[in-house]
Amino acid sequence: MTSPELDALDAHVKGLWKELLARPAVATFLTGPAIRDRRSYAIYLTQAYHYTSHTPRNQGLVAVRPDLPVAYRKFCLSHAEEEVGHELMALHDLRALGVTADPSAFPLLPATEMKIAYLYWIAQHGNPVARLGYSFWAENSYGPGGPFLEGMRQSMGLTAAQTTFFDAHADIDAKHGDDVRRVLVKACRTPEDWEAVHRAAQITMRTSFDMLEQELQHASALIAGEPSPFAFLDADLAGAAA
Amino acid sequence: MTSPELDALDAHVKGLWKELLARPAVATFLTGPAIRDRRSYAIYLTQAYHYTSHTPRNQGLVAVRPDLPVAYRKFCLSHAEEEVGHELMALHDLRALGVTADPSAFPLLPATEMKIAYLYWIAQHGNPVARLGYSFWAENSYGPGGPFLEGMRQSMGLTAAQTTFFDAHADIDAKHGDDVRRVLVKACRTPEDWEAVHRAAQITMRTSFDMLEQELQHASALIAGEPSPFAFLDADLAGAAA
Amino acid sequence: MTSPELDALDAHVKGLWKELLARPAVATFLTGPAIRDRRSYAIYLTQAYHYTSHTPRNQGLVAVRPDLPVAYRKFCLSHAEEEVGHELMALHDLRALGVTADPSAFPLLPATEMKIAYLYWIAQHGNPVARLGYSFWAENSYGPGGPFLEGMRQSMGLTAAQTTFFDAHADIDAKHGDDVRRVLVKACRTPEDWEAVHRAAQITMRTSFDMLEQELQHASALIAGEPSPFAFLDADLAGAAA
Amino acid sequence: MTSPELDALDAHVKGLWKELLARPAVATFLTGPAIRDRRSYAIYLTQAYHYTSHTPRNQGLVAVRPDLPVAYRKFCLSHAEEEVGHELMALHDLRALGVTADPSAFPLLPATEMKIAYLYWIAQHGNPVARLGYSFWAENSYGPGGPFLEGMRQSMGLTAAQTTFFDAHADIDAKHGDDVRRVLVKACRTPEDWEAVHRAAQITMRTSFDMLEQELQHASALIAGEPSPFAFLDADLAGAAA
Repeated sequence: MTSPELDALDAHVKGLWKELLARPAVATFLTGPAIRDRRSYAIYLTQAYHYTSHTPRNQGLVAVRPDLPVAYRKFCLSHAEEEVGHELMALHDLRALGVTADPSAFPLLPATEMKIAYLYWIAQHGNPVARLGYSFWAENSYGPGGPFLEGMRQSMGLTAAQTTFFDAHADIDAKHGDDVRRVLVKACRTPEDWEAVHRAAQITMRTSFDMLEQELQHASALIAGEPSPFAFLDADLAGAAA
Repeated sequence: MTSPELDALDAHVKGLWKELLARPAVATFLTGPAIRDRRSYAIYLTQAYHYTSHTPRNQGLVAVRPDLPVAYRKFCLSHAEEEVGHELMALHDLRALGVTADPSAFPLLPATEMKIAYLYWIAQHGNPVARLGYSFWAENSYGPGGPFLEGMRQSMGLTAAQTTFFDAHADIDAKHGDDVRRVLVKACRTPEDWEAVHRAAQITMRTSFDMLEQELQHASALIAGEPSPFAFLDADLAGAAA
Repeated sequence: MTSPELDALDAHVKGLWKELLARPAVATFLTGPAIRDRRSYAIYLTQAYHYTSHTPRNQGLVAVRPDLPVAYRKFCLSHAEEEVGHELMALHDLRALGVTADPSAFPLLPATEMKIAYLYWIAQHGNPVARLGYSFWAENSYGPGGPFLEGMRQSMGLTAAQTTFFDAHADIDAKHGDDVRRVLVKACRTPEDWEAVHRAAQITMRTSFDMLEQELQHASALIAGEPSPFAFLDADLAGAAA
Repeated sequence: MTSPELDALDAHVKGLWKELLARPAVATFLTGPAIRDRRSYAIYLTQAYHYTSHTPRNQGLVAVRPDLPVAYRKFCLSHAEEEVGHELMALHDLRALGVTADPSAFPLLPATEMKIAYLYWIAQHGNPVARLGYSFWAENSYGPGGPFLEGMRQSMGLTAAQTTFFDAHADIDAKHGDDVRRVLVKACRTPEDWEAVHRAAQITMRTSFDMLEQELQHASALIAGEPSPFAFLDADLAGAAA
């Protein structure tokens, strides 16, 4: 599905991916030792555990806002339902890696908390269509983010049982296909609505890359043997580089 | 599906139906002129329009509560999604009857507002399983409530196009079947949880019958030619008795 | 302070007091044995404990609504602040009577819960000025409700240490004086706003009298030695009639 | 008032001030042309307008959380009440500077939105004491932040009528004095509570400096004549450097 507004959004998000994948921290990761160390991936999964456990809640809150089109309300609720329990996939993959810690021990990085906070904020208090700006790129992130993930998978020698979170979301991306695009066209009724979508896409992409950067910093520190709130991963994963 | 707790809930609700169907207002309706006058049914549908437009919102709010079992969160969101837009069925049936007024002109009866208020209250602030006490009887109300509705249908000569709201909910009752029972068994983890379910079942049934009584009082007054907030129905429906 | 709209509200509330004080349950109480039995008063206080513990919360929620006049936002927050902890006055008076039960054992009567539910509903989802309809009569209830309370005080021989909840609220009524009237005139900007205030006044007065009736029914049953969720009061108060 | 926990919090916040005031953007501002250009200050005030209009709302939401100590609930509501309408002080100062634009035209910078989002998040979904971590430093920020503000005041030749927002908050800091400290000691009941306060202090300080940096970047761009969402200030203020 396409429209001038969707084209503009595609172009905006494409530009953001280019900008954000060019952040130095990404290149440093791709060429350094962290990409071969499973603790990097484990740190990523702990943060995925955290924000994913809030996704259906903040998605569901949009459907509570008054006066939304029927199609958008149904979209919010059915997507929220589909996301319920996905944090357990992240936990599954951590367990498959060998991580034994209780999720209550997973540190919540500031950028992860900001991402969660921002999604609740727009869901409850922002323009009610804004959250679609997050869905728009996040449910199509396997394409641009895929090589990055594939790099990790190969460098670390990850098995399918250790990547169910990624694989499921890649499948969901493919399946949902046009869902977000179709509902955007129905839910956005004014230029201000589209502007709110663009803004939320940009802010959530940047915050997601802030989260990624903080994860990579912690991974580097951990690998370097520095004191770390993720030190609990060492007993299970140190020396587990492929 | 059955269990001692479900049996106790069945017995409780059965007793409540017996008690509430024996309210004098119900008998008066079944034997008086109101059962032959479509304005009675139209008044009913205006209130169904009001509370149904809130059902998915207060149902969805339960899924936002923290620390609920995955099965219950999914139930809340998928049931909420299924209910989105059902107020438009009530509106459809009003239009099929010939009612032309805008929904913003439908009076909100105090008992209808109380029913709505109570469902938001338990969804947001009560025991998070309490709202299942409402679903338990409301999604199985066609059996005990059916004869009452069939009486209206026949007395008023209603066509299928004028009863889509009822017929759809009768179908949903049949389809959902054991859904609520299964999720109750998963979501209720303590005797206090079951008690909250019993309590919510009782309060919402009583409030629903309060709503029915207020509807029937307004119908009688309207038919008797007394001043009424539902007088707008007269132009479209007066003399429309079968 | 006065205005045509305030005069109309005064007249409406005056009529409601007359109607509600004429309910048979009130007369039955004033002339029967319950007015001499402290268990009646204790039951009243348990329900005051319940709803009062929610008053500042639902009052505070109004101030969170967007786009309200500064004066109204300040009123909501300062009145909410003033009400914080008033449930402890009700508890104090129960203790002064000799009641030893933990508040978690106080039954929550259906009408009390409905009153609480309705106040949250209008605070969060209704017309944002509606809750002033409750404050309007509740913060001026010592006048019309006073003789009823005085009757209890004398019949039961209550001391000042056993009536701090009432006495404090009588003082607050006197002190606040015109507060609610002044803020009503600022906050109500349309006829719909005034209508929402009238409606909330009426519904909350009726629900408060429903609560009172349920309290009196339970008092009668308890005094008559019937099984009662308030039986825990017997050990401390039975035979405590003045 | 003092305690070992308060001492630790003092030390933490002192360290954060030192770290954050050392950010290059701050030094650049203090020694560059932006400190002499009133557009810098105007941009600051537009963001103060935005976040301040949310402060009493997110502060009030804390008081709605269940099971908080009476002293903390009263603190939240009275502080919220005190902050109501402070956005109008920021607007007043903008008007006194000569800015004529409607507040709806004030851009909302991403970091400002993040700050707002985070405060709602902790108020509604975080540890209920967390927001005190923000109050702790923000209501004592005139000391460490004062020289920065004095620098602007002198460089720009600001009159008292143009700095009511700052001056009022400096007075409030002095007046409140120990309020936050006293309530912290009452509200924090576990080490986890104190940790939540530390975390919120750190995140809100960093986000506030992110906001400041974005303001200064926009000021530099505007002064350099680059395209800017704050270009609307030019007509009123360009050339208004003291």
